[in-house]
Amino acid sequence: MKEALARLRKFRDDRDWKQFHNPKDLSLALSIEASELLELFLWKSPEQADIDKVKEELADVVAYALLLADSYELNLEQIVLDKIAKNEQKYPVSKAKGTAKKYTEL
Amino acid sequence: MKEALARLRKFRDDRDWKQFHNPKDLSLALSIEASELLELFLWKSPEQADIDKVKEELADVVAYALLLADSYELNLEQIVLDKIAKNEQKYPVSKAKGTAKKYTEL
Amino acid sequence: MKEALARLRKFRDDRDWKQFHNPKDLSLALSIEASELLELFLWKSPEQADIDKVKEELADVVAYALLLADSYELNLEQIVLDKIAKNEQKYPVSKAKGTAKKYTEL
Amino acid sequence: MKEALARLRKFRDDRDWKQFHNPKDLSLALSIEASELLELFLWKSPEQADIDKVKEELADVVAYALLLADSYELNLEQIVLDKIAKNEQKYPVSKAKGTAKKYTEL
Repeated sequence: MKEALARLRKFRDDRDWKQFHNPKDLSLALSIEASELLELFLWKSPEQADIDKVKEELADVVAYALLLADSYELNLEQIVLDKIAKNEQKYPVSKAKGTAKKYTEL
Repeated sequence: MKEALARLRKFRDDRDWKQFHNPKDLSLALSIEASELLELFLWKSPEQADIDKVKEELADVVAYALLLADSYELNLEQIVLDKIAKNEQKYPVSKAKGTAKKYTEL
Repeated sequence: MKEALARLRKFRDDRDWKQFHNPKDLSLALSIEASELLELFLWKSPEQADIDKVKEELADVVAYALLLADSYELNLEQIVLDKIAKNEQKYPVSKAKGTAKKYTEL
Repeated sequence: MKEALARLRKFRDDRDWKQFHNPKDLSLALSIEASELLELFLWKSPEQADIDKVKEELADVVAYALLLADSYELNLEQIVLDKIAKNEQKYPVSKAKGTAKKYTEL
C-alpha cells in the first residue's frame, strides 16, 4: 500500500486538505463511505450489486483507512496482522467453527 | 497486503465461515466496524480517542475490506489507485484547493 | 412523542449531559446506534433478528433523533410529514411503482 | 406519530414497496440515512451544518424507524419510554453525572 499512501498524501497536500483531516473527521468520512458501499446492496440480494460501483466505494473506504492510519503513524498491514492474532484467541477454532455467533456468545 | 489476506483466508476457512461471507453481509460487517471506530471519538475532541482501540477497530475495517475485495477478486491497492485517478478529475486543484466542499458544490 | 421527549430531557439534565450534546455528536451517536441495530441482522436472514434487542437499539436511535430535533427546536413528526410530501414529488407513483430504484435512476 | 405512520404506509403501498421492506433492509436503509445525516457535519464544526438538510435527513431516519417498528407491530414511543427506564438503571445519576463515559466504564 506504499504507492497508494504516497499518492493519497500528495493528493491531499496539493489541495491543502490536511487542515480538515483530524482523526475524528477522518473516521467520520470512513464511516460515511462504508455506508455508501452498503447502499449498493440496499433492497437487493448479495449478487445484485453493481461491481464497478462497489470498486469505487470500497476504494474510498480504504483511502480513508490509509489516511487515518497515517495520521497516527500506524502501518495498516501490521495492525491487521496484530488483530488477526488477537482474534485467534477470541474465536478458537474448537468453539467458533461453523457458527456466526459473536465471541461474547460462544 | 498479501500476508494479511492469506492469514484472513486461513482464519476464515479454519472456522468454516465462508458460508456467511456473501458481499452484502461483508459490507454490513465493514460498516458496523467503521461505526465502532467512530464510537471511539463520540463526545470527544479528535485527540482524545484511545489509540490502542483505534488500532483494533481500524484493523477490523480493513480486514473486512480485504475479504470483500477478495470475494470479487479485486486487488485492494489497485482499486485505490484507480479511484485516486478519478478523484483527480472530480477535484481539480484549481477548484478544490483549501476548501472542504463536495465536488457537486465546487 | 411529547412524553418521551420530556423524559429524555430530564434524563439528560439530571446527568448534566447537555454539555456533550452538540448536534454533530448527537448525529454521531444516532449513527452509531443505527449501526448497533444493523448488527442484529449481521450474517442472518431478516427474520432471525432478536426482537427484544431490536426494540432496544431502535429505541436508542429514536431517542437521539428526538434530542437532535430538539436541539434545533424542530418537531419530529412535522419534519417527517414535510419529507413525505417532498418524496411524493421525487417518487411519482407512475414511475416508482414496484421498483426499488433510487429517484436518480427512475 | 400516528399521522406520519399512516402517511408512510399509504406512500409505501401506493408504490407497492412492501415487498422490499423486510426488517434487515429497513435497518440498512435507516443506517444509510443516519450516515447521510452525519455527512452534513463532515469536516465542519457542529454549528456549521445546513439546518434545512438536517431536517430532511433526520426525517428520513425517523421514517424508516417508523416503518421498521411497524413491521414488528411495535409502538415507537412506547419502546423509547421502556428504554429510558432501562437506561436509568444503567446510568445512575450518582455515577453518570457530568461524565460522558459508557456504562461499561462507570
